[in-house]
Amino acid sequence: VSESLLTPSRVYDLPHHEAIEFKDIVDAKRRIEGIICETPLLESPLLNDTAGRRVLVKAECLQKTGSFKMRGATSAITALEVAQQKSGVLAYSSGNHAQGIALAAKLAGIKSVIVMPNDAPKLKIDNTKSYGAEVVLYDRVGGEDREKLGATLAAERGLHLVKPYDDTHVIAGQGTCGIEIAEQSKRLGVTECDVLVCCGGGGLTSGIAISLESLAPQMIVRPVEPNNFDDVIQSQRSGKREHANLNANTSICDAIVTPSPGELTFPIINRLCGMGITVSDNQALKAMQLALTYLKLVVEPGGAVALAAATEKNNQSLSDTVICVVSGGNVDADRLKQAIDYQ
Amino acid sequence: VSESLLTPSRVYDLPHHEAIEFKDIVDAKRRIEGIICETPLLESPLLNDTAGRRVLVKAECLQKTGSFKMRGATSAITALEVAQQKSGVLAYSSGNHAQGIALAAKLAGIKSVIVMPNDAPKLKIDNTKSYGAEVVLYDRVGGEDREKLGATLAAERGLHLVKPYDDTHVIAGQGTCGIEIAEQSKRLGVTECDVLVCCGGGGLTSGIAISLESLAPQMIVRPVEPNNFDDVIQSQRSGKREHANLNANTSICDAIVTPSPGELTFPIINRLCGMGITVSDNQALKAMQLALTYLKLVVEPGGAVALAAATEKNNQSLSDTVICVVSGGNVDADRLKQAIDYQ
Repeated sequence: VSESLLTPSRVYDLPHHEAIEFKDIVDAKRRIEGIICETPLLESPLLNDTAGRRVLVKAECLQKTGSFKMRGATSAITALEVAQQKSGVLAYSSGNHAQGIALAAKLAGIKSVIVMPNDAPKLKIDNTKSYGAEVVLYDRVGGEDREKLGATLAAERGLHLVKPYDDTHVIAGQGTCGIEIAEQSKRLGVTECDVLVCCGGGGLTSGIAISLESLAPQMIVRPVEPNNFDDVIQSQRSGKREHANLNANTSICDAIVTPSPGELTFPIINRLCGMGITVSDNQALKAMQLALTYLKLVVEPGGAVALAAATEKNNQSLSDTVICVVSGGNVDADRLKQAIDYQ
Repeated sequence: VSESLLTPSRVYDLPHHEAIEFKDIVDAKRRIEGIICETPLLESPLLNDTAGRRVLVKAECLQKTGSFKMRGATSAITALEVAQQKSGVLAYSSGNHAQGIALAAKLAGIKSVIVMPNDAPKLKIDNTKSYGAEVVLYDRVGGEDREKLGATLAAERGLHLVKPYDDTHVIAGQGTCGIEIAEQSKRLGVTECDVLVCCGGGGLTSGIAISLESLAPQMIVRPVEPNNFDDVIQSQRSGKREHANLNANTSICDAIVTPSPGELTFPIINRLCGMGITVSDNQALKAMQLALTYLKLVVEPGGAVALAAATEKNNQSLSDTVICVVSGGNVDADRLKQAIDYQ
């Protein structure tokens, strides 16, 4: 068979050398149990009616710090060696990884410095400070490079950098969400369906995909991205990591506006995931409203895109039952009111 | 010992003949498992900081239909004999019992008629209809008697009346929440604390109290009521069922504005519960805001009073760790925005 006839996923078949495998997720689960919480898999009959299909909602906005990022952050920090713990950690993040690292560091009794964009939601900046982290703001819109700034700070102060998704322990931590999805959906008799995941750099998407490959191989993970920031989907199409121009467009989905899928996450997504789906800002707002009304959940725009895709009646490509991950709930008051009033 | 020296609780000691005992709750749990869901016990470090104590939140707003009432409704309907099921059920309710009965009846394939006040939150009326119930509105403020109207309708149409709290199967169903509280808090190492419960007619309060008497006897259930509608607390003080004047005052806590503790629930509350606590409408709004911000939960005013009491820094009578039940989340958009904007 010539290589051009192979789907991208086949290219990575047997043997594949990826950042993590399922046993890494099991190890992470053991480390973070008792620190993070198991989030519920929720269902609402009226939401099902609205969606025209059965929608099971993995409510990661109920995770400590209000997003799934607490899983990966705790996994990474509990995996540090003692010497690394002593010198402290550094992270750059639009806000959810920031809060995860800040709280996980606090609970481990170690210092954290977080580099955040100065246009991040105020709630995310405030909470990160409240967890005891030192926050350093950078000018995202002006084009300041957070990775460069983070690397400089880490070198200057001897801090250990925990990347938001291109870190094996972080991916393994996010993968624990997939173990819970497999166990909880099995109890409901659901073993075969699309699993929609809000996707930025791909840490959660790839982690869940690895877990489900082992525990629920009939489930297909599909990344969901905001319109115009569909770098993962473009990469799925081309088979290599494509880059979105972050300055050419805007999106209210701050949590998942990323330049490209990760170096470690993309090979996993490319091998295991079904084709991604994009949604508009308005669809995200509508999904936030549905979550408030029917699920009693506060969801942020970037955490609502998978629910938006799941409740899109006209999407014929979805299975009759879908699982969607509501990945975060850290949203400012004005945006929340905008969702309440959305018509 | 003269009876006047006995605390009210001692009067009911050994032997006491109450509406239910713990085994009735175990039976109810068996009937409703797989229909209702286990709700999580949530915790937020920032909420703890705000409260000045550890607050574990039993999130019953995440129960199907958005309130704990689905437990009791499902318990009652699954306990009906086949002949009763065939003729259908009737309920009167300000909205949460209504939705519980409507959905439980729908899932059991039986007819339901619900008598609701015409000033109930629109969301509650709409949802009850959406679950397939026939809704009959009555003039609550004008003094129309819902019990009389309900009895008439039940007699005319041969419907089985499921009362909102003075029904043994309903109380047993609400008690299943207490089994979950005992199990979930034990996993966190918490076995001794105050358990604050939003209290209207006392079905949830008495059901949880019976469960904890068996499973976590060091936990003390304390009812929480709105200012001016503290009929349960007045009854705890006098040792007999006192009545609140529903027309002399107003409260935004529609779900728990009831005339008096139930005939079946009060003896249980009187024997097992610690002294109740009252909160103002403003405290309820503030608690709704805390739930939105730190727990990512939508809570209705009447469902927020226990959280309001739990987060009241100046209450010295509370244990260092408290569990509070957030009992419902069915709130209209305007009230929700009022909570977001509360200062």
